[in-house]
Amino acid sequence: MNGIKESAAKLLTDLRKNVPLVHNITNYVTVNDVANAILAIGGSPIMADDIGETEDITAISSALVINMGTLNERTIASMIASGKKANVLGIPVVFDPVGAGASRLRNETAMKITEQVKISILRGNMSEISFIGGLEASTKGVDASESDSRNDGEALAVKVAQRLGCTVAVTGAVDIISDGKRTVKLYNGHPMLSKVTGTGCMSSGITGAFAGAGKDYLVAAAGAIASMSIAGEDAFEKYGNIGTGSFHMGIIDALSRLDGEAIMKRMKIDEK
Amino acid sequence: MNGIKESAAKLLTDLRKNVPLVHNITNYVTVNDVANAILAIGGSPIMADDIGETEDITAISSALVINMGTLNERTIASMIASGKKANVLGIPVVFDPVGAGASRLRNETAMKITEQVKISILRGNMSEISFIGGLEASTKGVDASESDSRNDGEALAVKVAQRLGCTVAVTGAVDIISDGKRTVKLYNGHPMLSKVTGTGCMSSGITGAFAGAGKDYLVAAAGAIASMSIAGEDAFEKYGNIGTGSFHMGIIDALSRLDGEAIMKRMKIDEK
Amino acid sequence: MNGIKESAAKLLTDLRKNVPLVHNITNYVTVNDVANAILAIGGSPIMADDIGETEDITAISSALVINMGTLNERTIASMIASGKKANVLGIPVVFDPVGAGASRLRNETAMKITEQVKISILRGNMSEISFIGGLEASTKGVDASESDSRNDGEALAVKVAQRLGCTVAVTGAVDIISDGKRTVKLYNGHPMLSKVTGTGCMSSGITGAFAGAGKDYLVAAAGAIASMSIAGEDAFEKYGNIGTGSFHMGIIDALSRLDGEAIMKRMKIDEK
Repeated sequence: MNGIKESAAKLLTDLRKNVPLVHNITNYVTVNDVANAILAIGGSPIMADDIGETEDITAISSALVINMGTLNERTIASMIASGKKANVLGIPVVFDPVGAGASRLRNETAMKITEQVKISILRGNMSEISFIGGLEASTKGVDASESDSRNDGEALAVKVAQRLGCTVAVTGAVDIISDGKRTVKLYNGHPMLSKVTGTGCMSSGITGAFAGAGKDYLVAAAGAIASMSIAGEDAFEKYGNIGTGSFHMGIIDALSRLDGEAIMKRMKIDEK
Repeated sequence: MNGIKESAAKLLTDLRKNVPLVHNITNYVTVNDVANAILAIGGSPIMADDIGETEDITAISSALVINMGTLNERTIASMIASGKKANVLGIPVVFDPVGAGASRLRNETAMKITEQVKISILRGNMSEISFIGGLEASTKGVDASESDSRNDGEALAVKVAQRLGCTVAVTGAVDIISDGKRTVKLYNGHPMLSKVTGTGCMSSGITGAFAGAGKDYLVAAAGAIASMSIAGEDAFEKYGNIGTGSFHMGIIDALSRLDGEAIMKRMKIDEK
Repeated sequence: MNGIKESAAKLLTDLRKNVPLVHNITNYVTVNDVANAILAIGGSPIMADDIGETEDITAISSALVINMGTLNERTIASMIASGKKANVLGIPVVFDPVGAGASRLRNETAMKITEQVKISILRGNMSEISFIGGLEASTKGVDASESDSRNDGEALAVKVAQRLGCTVAVTGAVDIISDGKRTVKLYNGHPMLSKVTGTGCMSSGITGAFAGAGKDYLVAAAGAIASMSIAGEDAFEKYGNIGTGSFHMGIIDALSRLDGEAIMKRMKIDEK
């Protein structure tokens, strides 16, 4: 059996060969970056959120990504309908509970989605996953609070993974990914990633592309999150001293050049 | 009489002088790029999609662009109301049937719009225009399927142009544009354009700007599509080996520098 | 007492220390740039517009920015509910009446908001502020008309500031800012800023960040608008001859590097 790193590298090669169609029900703030990130990593994005077509679009896709960044009543119904459709058809569902903890609507929606849809991969920051885990979250807006770093991410990831029966990725300075049995830590990335909006959304988007290319969701999540983090390192090397606009562009550049070989060379993973 | 190329070059010069206001009812994925592409080519974009104002905005504009990329019930009503208003006032209507063939909602909407609104220029990929033409489309998401290339684009463009009484642009590796009498082929562009989301939407947006600047819609479509393709070539020369983020930025850079002289020098057209 | 310039420079330093959360109810055309501009200047953006959560999000924020660029019935209700909530809690409200004068819906909405919500800072171009001031606006789309420059911006800013009891910023080649008692003129900026969509929206967004960092709203508006203008100058120096795509990126780069020292060095202000 390969290690997670080898499997993630191979999965990226497969992804670029198979070009999975990834259906995104996502927010209007970062949607362009999510589409371009999915294209850059080798997938094909489609965005559709009207209840009149959302299940049809899910049905022709290889993965569904639900991101509740700018949720509203209309799109919440579409998220749940598409999630159920994906479940029936065995299509993987990635859920990014953006801002869970920040408003009652977000809390209720996150709960509704996790109750009614079988999630394959849950990706969020410590605040968001803590909320899903029933811990006291200290959300400040949509970004992770500093105080969250005191929580024990590993125990949280394992607990939520076991409760929801899915893979959970808690992203931050160190990324922790668990499917309830296996747990890995990733050490790539750069703090400047938090100075560009949507790097979390892009991570979830490309997680959809990886999940659409292979069935081991721990590998898919690890590969996608490492890809985003390595892209951040690469963008920082080239543009860190120029500013966040160039750095933003550099992330997409780096994703578009990334391949399995680069994953093997640069991914820093602690596999237990 | 000038050739199409000379006329397109002259039209771009006129466009930059007259700064046509272009009303876009479009999707939230690529809307920022569409606005910036219209500004870059010399037009003035306005986005408005609420039924409470959409006809008012159309009425003060020089062209209307309807793009059904992320259609929903609310915006479909606005597309039709604005289209009818444009027809009454003699304002050109560009229609981009994004993803026609991919869901029943998109199919029905494309049919409804072509039935209820007199289109001036229809722009789409082979899958989308095939669907409008009543052929069996093999749509895979919002991008053209490879199998579509087996179809005969020229016959399709002519047929749909005659049926709808409009100019039809089927864009792809070779772009085919017909108004039912005249048919031209364009040979500019670069495959990397398909690795950035929204290059089709941007094409339709600047087609609106060209159509708002002159009444020969075959010339307008040819000028706009050649502009986008030349911008893609230019961006590839500068940024092709860096990545799709830089290339994306380079497209807007190139559009903003493009003028009639560059059209004369670089546009590759086969005029029958 | 410090001059406005010294105070604005100090406010930027405070902003970067305190990282105010800025709630934006804004348009889908420029929302990504607004979020990245707020991050670049040192704030933390959150976008939320569903009536089910918008007041909750306002309540945890340091400032609210209402931008009516792509208003619709659903979001208009949210703008007013959030504005009232901000008023109750003493949270500053920035209002950007995008396209006021261009449609009856925009006119009525601008009126409704200024009647029902106590605005802290009103920011717009001459056309838009003229409309709010009850003057005859000559709006052409969402950009300022040339004929507007004949109007007397200073008298307008003072009049509207006194009537609404707020700070008014009329932005253009020269920016005029008045709180009804104090009036300043700013001379930074570059014409190329009008060739990128959303530079006005970004100005309003970072005005929210400045207003969330300090209570003197004339200083906040002056600091924010000078920051945007200086970023435009900086971006033009680096990318002016390359094109509007690079220039666009350069604006965010420059904002992310800007500090109090740069404000002291570059801000050109006429303080009466």
